[in-house]
Formats: sequence, structure tokens, C-alpha cells
Amino acid sequence: MSIQVAVIGAAGYAGEELLRILTRHRQADVAVITSRKYADQPVSTVFPRFTGSDLKFSAPDVDQIAKTCDVVFLALPHGLATEYAIPLLEAGLKVIDISADFRLKSPEKYKEYYQEDHPAVELLSEAVYGMPERYREQIKSAKLIACPGCYPTSSILPTAPLLEAGLVSPDGIVVSSMSGVTGTGRKVALPLIFPECNESVRAYGTVAHRHLPEIEQEMAFAAGLDREIAINFLPHLVPVNRGINSTILLNANDGCTLEKIGEAYEKAYANEQFVRVLEAKKFSDTKYVTMTNCCEIAYNIDPHTNKVILTSAIDNLTKGASGQAVQCMNIIFDFEEAEGLI
Amino acid sequence: MSIQVAVIGAAGYAGEELLRILTRHRQADVAVITSRKYADQPVSTVFPRFTGSDLKFSAPDVDQIAKTCDVVFLALPHGLATEYAIPLLEAGLKVIDISADFRLKSPEKYKEYYQEDHPAVELLSEAVYGMPERYREQIKSAKLIACPGCYPTSSILPTAPLLEAGLVSPDGIVVSSMSGVTGTGRKVALPLIFPECNESVRAYGTVAHRHLPEIEQEMAFAAGLDREIAINFLPHLVPVNRGINSTILLNANDGCTLEKIGEAYEKAYANEQFVRVLEAKKFSDTKYVTMTNCCEIAYNIDPHTNKVILTSAIDNLTKGASGQAVQCMNIIFDFEEAEGLI
Amino acid sequence: MSIQVAVIGAAGYAGEELLRILTRHRQADVAVITSRKYADQPVSTVFPRFTGSDLKFSAPDVDQIAKTCDVVFLALPHGLATEYAIPLLEAGLKVIDISADFRLKSPEKYKEYYQEDHPAVELLSEAVYGMPERYREQIKSAKLIACPGCYPTSSILPTAPLLEAGLVSPDGIVVSSMSGVTGTGRKVALPLIFPECNESVRAYGTVAHRHLPEIEQEMAFAAGLDREIAINFLPHLVPVNRGINSTILLNANDGCTLEKIGEAYEKAYANEQFVRVLEAKKFSDTKYVTMTNCCEIAYNIDPHTNKVILTSAIDNLTKGASGQAVQCMNIIFDFEEAEGLI
Amino acid sequence: MSIQVAVIGAAGYAGEELLRILTRHRQADVAVITSRKYADQPVSTVFPRFTGSDLKFSAPDVDQIAKTCDVVFLALPHGLATEYAIPLLEAGLKVIDISADFRLKSPEKYKEYYQEDHPAVELLSEAVYGMPERYREQIKSAKLIACPGCYPTSSILPTAPLLEAGLVSPDGIVVSSMSGVTGTGRKVALPLIFPECNESVRAYGTVAHRHLPEIEQEMAFAAGLDREIAINFLPHLVPVNRGINSTILLNANDGCTLEKIGEAYEKAYANEQFVRVLEAKKFSDTKYVTMTNCCEIAYNIDPHTNKVILTSAIDNLTKGASGQAVQCMNIIFDFEEAEGLI
Repeated sequence: MSIQVAVIGAAGYAGEELLRILTRHRQADVAVITSRKYADQPVSTVFPRFTGSDLKFSAPDVDQIAKTCDVVFLALPHGLATEYAIPLLEAGLKVIDISADFRLKSPEKYKEYYQEDHPAVELLSEAVYGMPERYREQIKSAKLIACPGCYPTSSILPTAPLLEAGLVSPDGIVVSSMSGVTGTGRKVALPLIFPECNESVRAYGTVAHRHLPEIEQEMAFAAGLDREIAINFLPHLVPVNRGINSTILLNANDGCTLEKIGEAYEKAYANEQFVRVLEAKKFSDTKYVTMTNCCEIAYNIDPHTNKVILTSAIDNLTKGASGQAVQCMNIIFDFEEAEGLI
Repeated sequence: MSIQVAVIGAAGYAGEELLRILTRHRQADVAVITSRKYADQPVSTVFPRFTGSDLKFSAPDVDQIAKTCDVVFLALPHGLATEYAIPLLEAGLKVIDISADFRLKSPEKYKEYYQEDHPAVELLSEAVYGMPERYREQIKSAKLIACPGCYPTSSILPTAPLLEAGLVSPDGIVVSSMSGVTGTGRKVALPLIFPECNESVRAYGTVAHRHLPEIEQEMAFAAGLDREIAINFLPHLVPVNRGINSTILLNANDGCTLEKIGEAYEKAYANEQFVRVLEAKKFSDTKYVTMTNCCEIAYNIDPHTNKVILTSAIDNLTKGASGQAVQCMNIIFDFEEAEGLI
Repeated sequence: MSIQVAVIGAAGYAGEELLRILTRHRQADVAVITSRKYADQPVSTVFPRFTGSDLKFSAPDVDQIAKTCDVVFLALPHGLATEYAIPLLEAGLKVIDISADFRLKSPEKYKEYYQEDHPAVELLSEAVYGMPERYREQIKSAKLIACPGCYPTSSILPTAPLLEAGLVSPDGIVVSSMSGVTGTGRKVALPLIFPECNESVRAYGTVAHRHLPEIEQEMAFAAGLDREIAINFLPHLVPVNRGINSTILLNANDGCTLEKIGEAYEKAYANEQFVRVLEAKKFSDTKYVTMTNCCEIAYNIDPHTNKVILTSAIDNLTKGASGQAVQCMNIIFDFEEAEGLI
Repeated sequence: MSIQVAVIGAAGYAGEELLRILTRHRQADVAVITSRKYADQPVSTVFPRFTGSDLKFSAPDVDQIAKTCDVVFLALPHGLATEYAIPLLEAGLKVIDISADFRLKSPEKYKEYYQEDHPAVELLSEAVYGMPERYREQIKSAKLIACPGCYPTSSILPTAPLLEAGLVSPDGIVVSSMSGVTGTGRKVALPLIFPECNESVRAYGTVAHRHLPEIEQEMAFAAGLDREIAINFLPHLVPVNRGINSTILLNANDGCTLEKIGEAYEKAYANEQFVRVLEAKKFSDTKYVTMTNCCEIAYNIDPHTNKVILTSAIDNLTKGASGQAVQCMNIIFDFEEAEGLI
């Protein structure tokens, strides 16, 4: 017996990845898949990979989705999720939002970074941050999931256990991340055409990136703080399709050793099938996680500056978006957590 | 009237780049080009790009070079330069070393990072650090040039003017760099074959990298300190052939503004043809400097953390190695500084 | 109830892909995985992707494999399969060879292209060519499977139905193929390091490539000929990790139309889940098949020269090697044909 | 004493390459550079590589160009060249057109492939095909140069000497070409964004490509025919920025040997500094020609099918466009032919 799934706004790369996973999932049927632009066209028009499938895009119809589906994934550009989330939650569906709309707990932060009031403040507190390794219990009974961003996933997973264990300081954190080009979505713009990205490495958004408050929020939570922290987040675009590497620099607290770091990870992730912690002094590599839902974490200490240096690798479209979203769905519906993801 | 040039150890990528530049140079003839491995073979055996050229590799013969040449470039693996430098300096040649052998002023630092005593300590103080934008006057009369490393060039050029102007602190500096694969040399090893590098992003050498003391030395000099500083240098390998991007985080001193940063760069680089400073808030991009001798610099201030954020881009083989080496040669022989480099 | 699987010679890319598929397969357990070089080391030493798995390499032990396994995959370099195939076939195991050792029916052709006598001529006639879309019935009862090469798979699948239908001539065929670098195996050699492959396109092996007789053999079979044919096969190396595109030029016979080509494909592949034929006048694209077991086929007719132009795309490691091998295993053991492959 | 140069339509990749070459040229000043879209903006707005240069785009003003310039390069999209060529030729300027507008001698062929009448048929016969290795004498006195396309350059240079020598047949020629993405121009379109090109190989335009009649015209000329020939031209897009590899299959005539091919090339290209013929049985590689004006040619004979197999490599933006255009300018103005190009 399968659940019926709707995907709203599926014409981007996260939507494609969601379809790739869901068509493989044995307990979920894609019942509705919407795109205003491609309504009535077969999915294969946009994604030739699905040639032969019967799936067709339709214009979004909230009533019909409410009647026929159990869960809906929202894969929309920023700012549009509320319009769908409110009626579908009321209709009793589980709503899993892949956008940034419900990730921040603070409406003030939302306004600061998105330059407008949040349209449904009450949903901010209701939403559960969809990172199973941190919030599995809350996800089980959640109605609304705010899926973490790709950069936040790659930053929070390696950092949180060390903050929780008090091994590193929540102050002075630096996250230097390199993302593949699918991280910008399926956008058609001059800086994204092949000759402008290939043989190019460049930083962007190093001040006030929209993923910044989400990272700070979750790092502060992990550190058990009820004050804000300020970190430096330095994103870069590199010429790969998929994958984010984050290199994270933290001030080591007294008594922090490689052994204690290893223990903190063991405690946090020993039973996690989608987090892989390497031996001390190794480095994560995006090529070992692309097309998987895994986060690979590596760690070291630099005695020269007394810093802990972490590296992490995820696939931005899988663990950084659609894979993690399906992982949440599996938890909510009490399926095997890895169903569709291996 | 041309000078006669010898290149010792030319079979790597820096050697190839040196040849590319020198064969275009109108006042320098490549008289000798050595490689033990490829002795007596035409250069085109190793570098098909030079098919049609008469150049042949020979086994290195110090006496012959001493007799026939005016200047010698050493493009050897670490640790081998002294053997050639001493007799050739004695014979009155100018010696331009592209390796790391003479870059550190401190024999102790050399031993710490290279695990052996330096074989010619007296040359460490004699050598001039071959960065024309910082040491042009000394280069004019230098006999031995220690060409800067690629990472150091990309770190020091953007940072030094701000340290000199007192706009940023020499403490707590973080340099996160991404290098193309030619930066590892023309090494044949499993981690460097195409499928292991393509679609891969990874950090390496984040603790005690051999370029670290060189960066710290020059940053301390720029800050006018007679004490050591400790920075974090975080190198990464990214799937491009050529190019280094460095993103540098510095603690802003009181009174540091975008305007003052702009002025400091104006003062330092207004007359430099190989340094290009972008408007505030832009980002450097390696694709605009590859196959050129330029360093592109961009800057911003993050008020959230009170950090100055710099980005820089160079071609690791040109401004980061062979191009800068020829720039030094041009200064020494009073040629136009850009000869062969445009 | 699962079958027990041995993989011999698993340290290359085809071995890694085989593991990736088999660890996902619900009716097959990887019982033995051998590598002389890495004996006693965890699989994750070679393939960090499998960190966390219990799998360990062992030295190959034919007796132990014979006792404990139902099927063995041979992923060895050319010329080594016979040594394992003979005793394991005698012990009653199914043997699936991914190398080229049993693909040719003619011992003479084998000698011509491999410069030595075939060590077990009798196995050449016994072996079934492991291309399910052409030989499914024979595969069901086969003991020894000779898995097709990657280039042959990409050439034969699009061509055979048209040859069978008599729409094109078996003479004068030209196959121009472009392969990703994993197609050369996990070889460590100067021409394969990243800077030598990236931003490079080059032909190689355009005369007497070892995949040539296999392509000619199967095309002649498809055309129902009992004579040899001679084709031109033009392989190229392009800077992608995975994927082969083949563009195939054939002389159209009288009466050949786009409609008839479409019908021939419909007849051949309508029920094939791993062959996807695009509408007329489109082009296959490797990016739609990588990491899948699909072959994508497109077709057109050039009235200017009266040629049929086919393009095909496969993943060289999946449909071109390990995926097709598992597809054969599934057929032999009467599993769902797509098990582990979706 | 320098000539004054205008570049009309300079905002694409061929325009950027033209600027790169001309700013290095010691006898040519870029006096005017036009772009309607970017009028009054510094060139560095579009091409940051030229930051620091004084060059500004202006709206095209034929009168002003006529008064101030000696030569004009037209780097416009198809169909727009005539409008500028007529008045500027009348004003006595040399006109070098990089588009396809004047390459075909036959107005009928033009109409067949461009679906409209040629706007200035008389210019078709006046224009000289700008391939110095074939038409140097005519170029010397030409007023209007039709620069060859990138694919045609890569096809004609290797083929023409063998056709002229009667070593191969002009019938049944197959050209399979792989082009980098700058070959499509600086177009912003979904199929050209990085994630759609990277890790992708695909054919396109295999029937009736607009470069086809130009290739056929020049091959027929080389063969000394006064009839048309029909070839198959199979272009592919591969994930590199720059470079075209063409693999060309020709029917060997009686008596064709490797030696005779070598001699034919020797006769044609011994004195050509921008054509490099490799030893028999080697392969050209785009990485040895990118950022140069060279065409690298390699050859072999396949006795199995009696075909001559040629491979060639050029940089599509240099020898395939702007470099060859400047080479023509150098010939017209009696400069050293390599000025600006080495």
C-alpha cells in the first residue's frame, strides 16, 4: 500500500532529483506533478531521462491535490510556499517544503534577509527543520517540514556535535564552501553558461548570503545558546555539476583533542546511515557522495593556530535537498528511512 | 641583442610555461634546456605544442651553461636548486629559482617545514623574493631570485597593502584557496587521474602546508612586525587546469573602510600593469587571469563580523610561477617589464 | 533467499560499479570480493564510497569461491579470465565475464587482435554474448556470459534492428564514438592525469581497436550474413567521467524511411526497459543515461548523402559493463530484470 | 606607424578573442569597437579581462569608421554583414568578415542553407576566402575577406592537400567533429548552461548544418572538380571551452601510402608557421592548439577498409575565427604574418 505524493514546482534540478528518487521508492506513488510552464506536457519534455514514463505536468490545483494526496513536496522559488502550505496543511496533508520559506524561527531574521515580512509567521514555529540526524523525533509527528538548505546541511552536520560537546567555541566560526553549479538551480543566465563556469573558480555572496542566518540559528541551537552568533560564510562556485565541500574553521576549546572529536561524532552519528565520519586527518571528497544521500565528514586540529578544521561533502541535490526531503517523508510515514535513497 | 637563457629541469608544467613565454620573448634566446630523463630528445617529445621548434633537451652541464648563458631558471623539485645555484652564481650568472628552496629567510623555519637543514644558509639571506610589486628595487640588482609560490602570490598581493596601511590585523588571518590541478605539477598518481579529479572538490594540506611559512613571513614583513604570525591556510583542489582563487578573511582595524582599502590599493598598485583591482564588492574570477601574468583582486567588508574579505585570482603557472620569474628577469636585465608576458 | 556472489578483480571502476549495484540488490549478497593487491584491506580503502561497509578484499581462492558462491563476476584485465572460468564452471557456478576474453566466436579473430592463441577455444562457442536485448533466451540457460564491451554495446543496440529489418546496408558502416575517461579503466598514466584530459579532445585507436571485431561480428549476425563485414570504428577520449556517445553512419537501403526505422525499433525494443528510443530527428545525450542502465537511441536520415544517422548514449560502466552484467545475472536467476538497476 | 582598426559587434567570444590579439599587436590600434547593447560602456564591463584598458564600446557609426579606420572586422550574427560591408568597402576600407555571409560562392547554395536571397550577390564573387594556407596571394590584394568557419578550417586544412594530390577521393567523405562550447557563441540558453553541458556529449546538426556547403565547396575546389560533392558532416558538442577536433574518413585512391601523404603535406605546409603536421599514426589533440593560431594535423591509413583517417585540432576562436582573421589582416597590410599571434 503506497502513499500518494504531489510535487509542486518540479521543473528544476531539485524537482528532477525528487522524481528520480520517488520513481524508485516502493511505497510512494507520484500522483501529481505540477508546473505552470509545462502544464499538460509529459515530464520527459523537460527531463528526457524520464522518457517512457507516463508522468505529465499539470497546472497546480490545490483542491485536487488535497483530495488525492497524502503528502506534498514544495519545490518552488523563494516566497511562494505559504500559498500552498496553508490550504494543504488544513486539508490534512503533510507538507515538505524544499525552499527556504520556513527554515528561520525568527520573523525578524526573515525580514532582514528577505526584505519582506513573512506571510505566515505562525508556520515558522510550527515547522520542523528537516534534518533527521538532529530532529528525528520532531519530524515523526511534524505536519510541516522545512528542509534545510544545501550549504546549511554541509555546515551543520559536521559542526553541531562538536558544539554540543563543548569542544569548540560558537564564536569566530568560518565556513568556506564550494558548490557545484546545480546549486544555483536551473537558471538560464550569462554567468552560468558553460564557458563562463568551466575553468573558472569564484567566490560570491560572501556578505549576507541568505543561507547565513539558517546556519547561525542551528549552530547556536547546537551550542545551547540563547543568544545570536555571527559566523563568516564564504560560498564559491566551482565547475562541477553536483556536490558541496565545506571547510570549517573553529576555535578549539581547552581539552579538545582528536580523540574527543572522534567520540563526539561516534555519539552523534554511530547509528546514522547517511553520515560517514572518516578517520582523523583525512579529507572529505565530493566525488564519494554525489548521487547519494550521504554526508562525509573529516576532521583535524591545527596546533599552530589552535583551530579545529572540519571538511564535509554532500550532494547538494540529494542530502542537500531532495534526498533529505524524502528521508523526512520516510520518517513521517514510518517507512524504512533509506527507502528510495540507496 | 639577446641574452642567453638556460632552463634546468624543464619537463614539468612550469617548465612548459617558461618555454611558452621565452619563445615569445624578443630579447631572450633559450640556449640550453635540460632534462635528465629526456636528454637528447626534442622538446616536442614531451610538449607537442613545440613541434617544429629546434629545441632539444640535454643533460644538465653546469660548465657549459656557465660558459654560454647569462641567466638560468631552475625549475626543479624541492631540494635540488642549491647544487646548481652555487656554481652558476659563482660563474656570474643570474639565477632565478622557481622552487621553494630560497624563499624562507629563516633556516629554522626551513628545517621545521622541510625536515632537513638548509644546504646553503648564506643564500637564504642573499636571495631576493621575486615579487616585483613588493621588491622591485632589490630585484634590479639581485643575483639570486627566489620566485614566490603560487599560493603565496595569490595571498600576499591582496593582503600586503592593507597590512602596510594598518587597515587590518596581522592576527587571525584565514586564507582559503582553490587551485587547479597543474598546481600539483605534472605528477602521475592515482588521485590525479581525470576521473579522480573531475566532479571532485576536496581540501588537502590544511595543517602545516609548505607554503604556509612563506605566506606568514611576507605578511609579517608587510605588517612591519619583527615577530612571527600564525595564519590558517586552507588549500583545495578543484577541477580546472589552471588558476588559483584565494578568499582571505582579515580582522578589520578601527577606521577601516572600503574607501581606505581602495586608497591603499591605489597607492600600491596604480602603476602595476600586472595587478588589477576591481571595484569594491566585486569578486575575482580565475577565468579572467588564466594564460596571463595578472593578479585580479577584489575586496569587501562584512559588517556582521567586522572582517575584511578579499578575493584574488592568478594563473598558478604564470603569475604564480614562470610568468613572475620572467617578469623578474626583465627587471634584472632592464627590459620592458611586460616583454614576453602580454 | 539470496544468491551468493563473488567478484574477482574488483579494484577498478567496473568493480566499483558492480559493488554499487550489488549492495543495492535485494537478492544477491556479495560473499567474496578479491584483489591480490588489496587483500585483507576493507573495500573502503580503495573506494571510500563504501566506508562503513564490512566488505573486505581477499586474495582469490577458487576452491573457497566454488564452495560458497552461486555466481562469479570476473572483472579482470584481458587474458586472465580463463584461469578462473574453467574451474568455477566445473564447480557449477555461473560465470559472468566483464572482460573481452570470451566475446569473439572466432579463435582466428581473437589471435589477430590479441596476438596470441585463445587459451580455451571451446569456451568461445559456449559463451553467450551478454546483451539481453539480443540474446535473452540464450542467457537464461547460459553458464558462461561474455559481457559486451562498452563501445560495442553503444554501437550494436542502435544498429542491429535496422540491419535485421534490411533498412540499411551492412557495408560501409562508420561508428564515431566519444568515451569518458573511466572507459580506460583506473589506469595511472601521464596521458590520463587531469590536466592532460581536461580541455582536451582526441581520437585514438582508429585502426584495429580491440573492440572492432566484436562490433563487426554482432553487426554481421544482425544482418544475417555468413560473411565478414568491415567497418570503421573511430574512438575518441573526451573530458567526462562516464558516458559514451556513438554517432553511426549507415548506407540507407531502398525504401528506408524514418517511419520504417521507427517501426523496426518499436518491434525490437517496445518491451525493453533499458532501451529508450527518441522521436525521429532528435539526438541522444550521455547526460540522460549516466548512472543508469539505459541506452538512449536517436535516428535521422540525411537525404543529401542517403545515409541513416544514428546516435546512441550509454553509461560505459553501467549498460556498458557492470549494469548489463547484473542484468544478465537477473535473467539467469529469474529475478526481476531491473533488480538493483533502478 | 600603426593602422586603425574597427571591430563591429565585439561583445561575443570571437570579439573578445579579436581584442585579445589586437591589443597585443604592435602595428594595429583598436580605434573603434561597437556594440549597440553596451554602447558607452567600458569594454571591461563585458570582458573583465580588459579592466584597466581605455577601450569603450560605441554604437556603430559607419561614417565615423569610414573616416578614421583602415580596416574593419565584422563579428556580427549571420545576415548583418552586408549592411556594413558595402559602405565601408566603398569608403576604401578593407573589410574582414568573421560571419558566414560571404563564404559561399553560389547564391543558390546560400539560399538553400539560409532560406533567403543573399543581399549582395556581387560581393560573393569578390570576397576572398580568408584561409592564408590556400589563398595567400588573393588575400594580399583582397578588399573583402570572408573568414572561414571553425569547422571548415578544421576540415579543409587537413583534407585539401590530399585531394589536390589525388591521393583520396572527393566522394564519400565523412567529417566527425567535436567542438567546445564557445563554438556556439556567447549564447544564453538552457542547453548551454553549465550543468547541461558538463558531463554531456551529444551530436547536433548532423543534417544540413550551415557549415556543410562551405566545406563541400572548398573540398571540391581542392579536388579540382567543377561538380558538387556531398559529404557527411557530424558535429558534436563536448564539455571544453575551446577547441575543435575533426576526425575525417576518406576513400584512399590507388597508390595512396603514408609516405605520399607525408609528402603532400610537406609540399603544402612545409613553410606554414600555423600548420603542424605530426608523424604518421599519431593523433592531434586540441590541448596542444588552444590559445594558439595553429592547426595540428595527423594521419593514418586503415588497410582494413582502405580509408585514410585524418585528425585535426584547432582553437575554434583563434585559427577558427579571430586569429585567422588577424592573419589575413597581416597579409593584406604586409605585416609579419604572425604579428600578434604568437
